[in-house]
Amino acid sequence: MPRIALTCEYDGSAFVGYQIQDNGRSVQQVLTEALEKLYKEEIKITGCSRTDAGVHARGHVSSADVPFYIPVEKLPLAINALLPQDLAVKKAVYVNGDFNARFNSLGKRYVYRIYAAPIRSPLHASYAYYSSYEPDVDKMAQAAKLFEGEHDFAAFCAAGGSQHTTVRRLNSVNVERKDNTIEIEVQGEAFLYNMVRIIAGTLFYVGIGKIKVDEIADIIESRERKRAGKTLPPEGLTLEEVYYDWDRYIV
Amino acid sequence: MPRIALTCEYDGSAFVGYQIQDNGRSVQQVLTEALEKLYKEEIKITGCSRTDAGVHARGHVSSADVPFYIPVEKLPLAINALLPQDLAVKKAVYVNGDFNARFNSLGKRYVYRIYAAPIRSPLHASYAYYSSYEPDVDKMAQAAKLFEGEHDFAAFCAAGGSQHTTVRRLNSVNVERKDNTIEIEVQGEAFLYNMVRIIAGTLFYVGIGKIKVDEIADIIESRERKRAGKTLPPEGLTLEEVYYDWDRYIV
Repeated sequence: MPRIALTCEYDGSAFVGYQIQDNGRSVQQVLTEALEKLYKEEIKITGCSRTDAGVHARGHVSSADVPFYIPVEKLPLAINALLPQDLAVKKAVYVNGDFNARFNSLGKRYVYRIYAAPIRSPLHASYAYYSSYEPDVDKMAQAAKLFEGEHDFAAFCAAGGSQHTTVRRLNSVNVERKDNTIEIEVQGEAFLYNMVRIIAGTLFYVGIGKIKVDEIADIIESRERKRAGKTLPPEGLTLEEVYYDWDRYIV
Repeated sequence: MPRIALTCEYDGSAFVGYQIQDNGRSVQQVLTEALEKLYKEEIKITGCSRTDAGVHARGHVSSADVPFYIPVEKLPLAINALLPQDLAVKKAVYVNGDFNARFNSLGKRYVYRIYAAPIRSPLHASYAYYSSYEPDVDKMAQAAKLFEGEHDFAAFCAAGGSQHTTVRRLNSVNVERKDNTIEIEVQGEAFLYNMVRIIAGTLFYVGIGKIKVDEIADIIESRERKRAGKTLPPEGLTLEEVYYDWDRYIV
C-alpha cells in the first residue's frame, strides 16, 4: 500500500482544531473525508501534531496509507478539488513505511502574531492577537533569547499534559516588527501543550512592562505556570513548518 | 447638532454589503446600532458608497448627525467597544454641515487582489481571488494604462445601474506583483456599478491571454459589456481610501 505525506495549509478560524472530535469540524475529519471520497475506501491519517481550535497552519504534515497510486504531481489538485476553501494540500510526496508524521518530526517552526496599534484592525483580526498597548519590541527580542536552548519549560505548559518530562529544546526564538505586526518566531524540536502561546504571552508581558527581562531566567527556573504570562488566544498562532529528514523517507 | 465623519475598516466576509438591507447584516446597520447605543437616540448615517457583499474596506467613510459632543480622541474607542471584531472606526472627526460623505467625495482608491499560484492558499482565500494560471503581469500593467483618463466605461458597468452617463475619469490604474499576490490599484473620481471588478476581470483576461493589450481601446469604445472580461468575485476587492477636501469640512 503506498503511503503519502501531505503538507497542508489551513485557516483555523472555522475548525475545532486538527484532531477529530465529536463536537465539530476538525481538519483531520475534513481531510479524511476528502481522501475517502478520492480513494473510495476507509483511510486513517496521522498528523504531525494537534493544533487547537482557531490555530492556523501553513505547513502541517499528515500521512496516510492509500489503496492505489496516483501520480504525485496530480495528488494536491485531486484532493483540493474535494476540500473546502479553508483547507488545502500544498504538497504531496510518497514516503516509505518508516515515515510517521507524528513520530519522525525533527522540529517545528511557529509564528505568533500580535497586531499592535491604538485602534484594532478588522482586516488583521483573524490572524493576529490585538494589543492596544505598544510593546517594546527590543525588550521582547532580548527576553526571547533567554528561552533558547534546553530548559525545563514546566512554567510554560498548560495543565493536563501527559508528558513524562517538561524539558524541551528551543533552537531559536526571534521577535521582529513588520509594520504594525509583531512576529514571535519559535523554532524547536518538540513543544508542550500551549507552550508557544504561553511564551508569546510572557514576551508580550515583557513588552508592556509587566515582566522584566531579567526575571525570565527565574520564571523558567521556578517551573511555576502562574509566574509566566497569560496564554495568548489561538488566532495569533500559525504552525509555519514541520521538519523531517525527508531524504530518509521519500520514495 | 454636531456632525461626525467616521473612517471605518471592515472585513466584508460576513456582511451583506455596506447598505442596510432586509436580508442580513449590513455594515450600515451594525454601525447605526452601535451609534444608537452610544448616543441613546435614533441616528441616521450616510455612507460614501455602497460596497457589495463580501467586499472589504480599509477606509470607508460615513457621516452622521449626533445629539451631543464626545471628545474626538475618545470617539473611535467608544464606538469600537460597541462594534463586532469585523468592523472598526479607525478615525473620527467633527465636520461642518456642508459635509456629506457621499456627495463630497473627490475620489476613491480601490485595490483588487489576485492570488496566483499553482495551488490555492486557504490563508489568502478571504482577501484575494485565486488564479491557478500565472498571469503576465507586465501585459496587465500595460493594459492598465489604457484605462486611465476620461472614457465612456459602459462596457465596464453591470446592468441595472441608474446613472445618467457612463463617462468616468480614472486618475491611475496600476498593476504590481507582491509575492504571489497581484494588486490592481484603481484610483478615480467616481465609479459605475461593479466597474472595478470588471476592469480587474478584463486585466486578468489580458494576463492569461484571453484578451490582447491592443484590443482594450476597442473594447472601451465598443461600450459592450460582453466584450470586457468577467466580473471578478467580491472577496478580492478592498476600498482602500476615499478622498475629501477635509480642510473645507473639519471643525
